Amino acid sequence: MVAIIDKELGDLKDKLLRIGALVETQLDRSVKSLVERDNMLAATVIDADHEVNRLEVEIDEDCIRLLALRHPEAGDLRFVTTAMKIVTDLERMGDLAVDISERALELNDEPLLKPYIDIPRMAVAARQMLKDALDAFVNRDPELARKVTQSDDYVDELNHQIFRELLTFMLEDQHSISRAIRISYISKYLERIADHATNIAEMVVYLVEGKIIRHTGKS
Amino acid sequence: MVAIIDKELGDLKDKLLRIGALVETQLDRSVKSLVERDNMLAATVIDADHEVNRLEVEIDEDCIRLLALRHPEAGDLRFVTTAMKIVTDLERMGDLAVDISERALELNDEPLLKPYIDIPRMAVAARQMLKDALDAFVNRDPELARKVTQSDDYVDELNHQIFRELLTFMLEDQHSISRAIRISYISKYLERIADHATNIAEMVVYLVEGKIIRHTGKS
Repeated sequence: MVAIIDKELGDLKDKLLRIGALVETQLDRSVKSLVERDNMLAATVIDADHEVNRLEVEIDEDCIRLLALRHPEAGDLRFVTTAMKIVTDLERMGDLAVDISERALELNDEPLLKPYIDIPRMAVAARQMLKDALDAFVNRDPELARKVTQSDDYVDELNHQIFRELLTFMLEDQHSISRAIRISYISKYLERIADHATNIAEMVVYLVEGKIIRHTGKS
Repeated sequence: MVAIIDKELGDLKDKLLRIGALVETQLDRSVKSLVERDNMLAATVIDADHEVNRLEVEIDEDCIRLLALRHPEAGDLRFVTTAMKIVTDLERMGDLAVDISERALELNDEPLLKPYIDIPRMAVAARQMLKDALDAFVNRDPELARKVTQSDDYVDELNHQIFRELLTFMLEDQHSISRAIRISYISKYLERIADHATNIAEMVVYLVEGKIIRHTGKS
């Protein structure tokens, strides 16, 4: 029995890393579709979202089965229930990659307002946070999880910086307003992806140490 | 044993309704603090957030205990795991009420851009969606849950309408831009609260009917 539950928990970790890698790819591609003005790539992201959703349901069902048949205890039980929460965050990060691609499609139709510099920088940071948060979870590593929550401040700062810069564009030329607002939405989506990674990291610290480090005012 | 698990599931439902009612109050007050320019009320919302967080942790722990000690089966097992997901959505709705209050504090410091009409309308709709989604969950009522998902379109439409109107303000007077953008954020927060209610409603349909009705592009 111990062997079976360990094998099933191992499979669960593998699947979580798989959906995590998929969401990372979706995030990369969504930002690339914006920066390189590539509508085909944006469409690819939108199409692939169903695969994220499918994996989410599959992982959920695996967890339910594990709970029903194996009755995991203590740390293993918390690991499974946390996995069920984390997979919801991952699925929503996938939705945000779709949102980025949709805004990219709109922006690609119009003249370039300015080259994108901070947006890819934010995306790189958010992607790393996602990767680290999931690694922290599967390896039960609270130190790595804490690193993720610290990176969140950097992403928030980039979001504010992008916003201030866009504001100057809007003030100088009213024809830039609708594009600037779309870009600010993308910046916000990336900030929310980083928030989801932070949520995951906070759950990891709670899982391993029983400490609540959630900061308020984020969602 | 059956009696104990039924009692504990009943207690879980009560607590979920309690955190739901608290989040409703937080939402109401946050919007009221904006409309009535009441900084004290905004501060009250920000202060009360820890109570939402505390209840979330308590419900999570109740669910873990139920799983560990009672080994609920089939529908009861899915009810408990869904409760654990729903409570995360509720906590994040609470965070969004805090975000609204924070923007209200900023906006209350500046001259009124325009009377708020559509924002309270959105808040009423989002609040009803939250209430209905939770009622649908505790009563396992997929019809009510479907009503919630349909209301989401109305809230999205209000959000777009608010945004278009704010855009005309921004185009007419550049001094209105920073206030208009803050109001558009509040509109976005309310849209996200409605999205969380929709997420809950979709989970209820899945819980009761096993059908996935999630629409993409939301998070």
